[in-house]
Amino acid sequence: MITANQRSPITVALAKGALLKDSVRRFQAAGLDFSDLLEEDNRLLMVPSRCGTARALLVRNADVPVYVAYGQAQLGVVGYDVLREHQLPVAQLVDLSFGGCRMAVAVKASSGYRRAADLPAHCRVASKFTRCAEAFFEQLDLPVELIHLTGSVELGPITGMSEAIVDLVATGRTLRDNGLVAIEDLFTSSARLIGHPLALRLDDGALQGLVERIATVQRPVQVSAR
Amino acid sequence: MITANQRSPITVALAKGALLKDSVRRFQAAGLDFSDLLEEDNRLLMVPSRCGTARALLVRNADVPVYVAYGQAQLGVVGYDVLREHQLPVAQLVDLSFGGCRMAVAVKASSGYRRAADLPAHCRVASKFTRCAEAFFEQLDLPVELIHLTGSVELGPITGMSEAIVDLVATGRTLRDNGLVAIEDLFTSSARLIGHPLALRLDDGALQGLVERIATVQRPVQVSAR
Repeated sequence: MITANQRSPITVALAKGALLKDSVRRFQAAGLDFSDLLEEDNRLLMVPSRCGTARALLVRNADVPVYVAYGQAQLGVVGYDVLREHQLPVAQLVDLSFGGCRMAVAVKASSGYRRAADLPAHCRVASKFTRCAEAFFEQLDLPVELIHLTGSVELGPITGMSEAIVDLVATGRTLRDNGLVAIEDLFTSSARLIGHPLALRLDDGALQGLVERIATVQRPVQVSAR
Repeated sequence: MITANQRSPITVALAKGALLKDSVRRFQAAGLDFSDLLEEDNRLLMVPSRCGTARALLVRNADVPVYVAYGQAQLGVVGYDVLREHQLPVAQLVDLSFGGCRMAVAVKASSGYRRAADLPAHCRVASKFTRCAEAFFEQLDLPVELIHLTGSVELGPITGMSEAIVDLVATGRTLRDNGLVAIEDLFTSSARLIGHPLALRLDDGALQGLVERIATVQRPVQVSAR
């Protein structure tokens, strides 16, 4: 069984959306070409590398750590925000430095709140990342009512459903367009290479070699990845 | 407060995606025209009706009952599947008969399983609807390990991560394209008009009138809505 696993092709779980292009480029520079995933008309969820020695699974952001945790993919690329929110048993291997954004508390610009501690106790906070938000407000010792949404979180304060939101902010344009302003950061996020712990332990060298190439190739010249 | 609420414009939460076109048509036939939501270049999440007496919130499927439960929308249109999964305190008002589909257990066509009870105990089942799946397998007295995914659930059996999936099936094409077959239905689903219980209780007649028009206009001629 172990031998068969070691010799089977490497499977990589990649996230649809904003991280995909950079993820494919990084693997390409490390020798695995999944650029078929970037074709406009691609409808396949499972794509072999051009060399045929590996395959990529194209899944939603939040599902990347699931496929890696269950060992269906030995490696994956996903935002640190997802790892913080879902806390699955995967190994964090490399900070890939792209997909940078921050998890922030935002409020209506007209609200007068200037930091999270200004929010009234028991106010409502809408978020897609309710576990991250819960931990943050607990640490702040501020009891809030969390409302879980799956998208367009900015509608929370606009409709008056919530005083604040906790959401990812990249350029800040969505906030500005909706009259909102970020008042405090929970943490910064970027894309991470993650691995299945057992697969890494049973590795005959192929996985480790790939991880090292991904860690070193095309690394942007900068002092800190964060 | 109550008087102000009664006189404020009616807000309707509509789901992005497959249900939107029929939802807009149904409200249009009942006298509220939100067809601006159907414009290809629409980016607005909040759209007034053409007559100006109401507004629509465009949100994700799973968020419709949230906005209605919190009273930010007095009415909403959402699939029964979402109502079953999230169990929020909203009133189910009208079965709108469109958006028909079924929640089904599906397996690899090559697996040999012909009904849910054939699945081995403690096997893995992937789903976006893990609460519905949990209730179903509990009722069946079959212990399974549920894996929550947020999309492309059909990859579960394909990659070998799960023996089965529980997912919505409309035409069955996605299953067929992926070599899967539905073996048992949990329930059938269709779009439902839902309401905020307090808003309905405080209604001065405007809401009830709208609900009645939606219930009667353009109802397809058929004996049973299910």
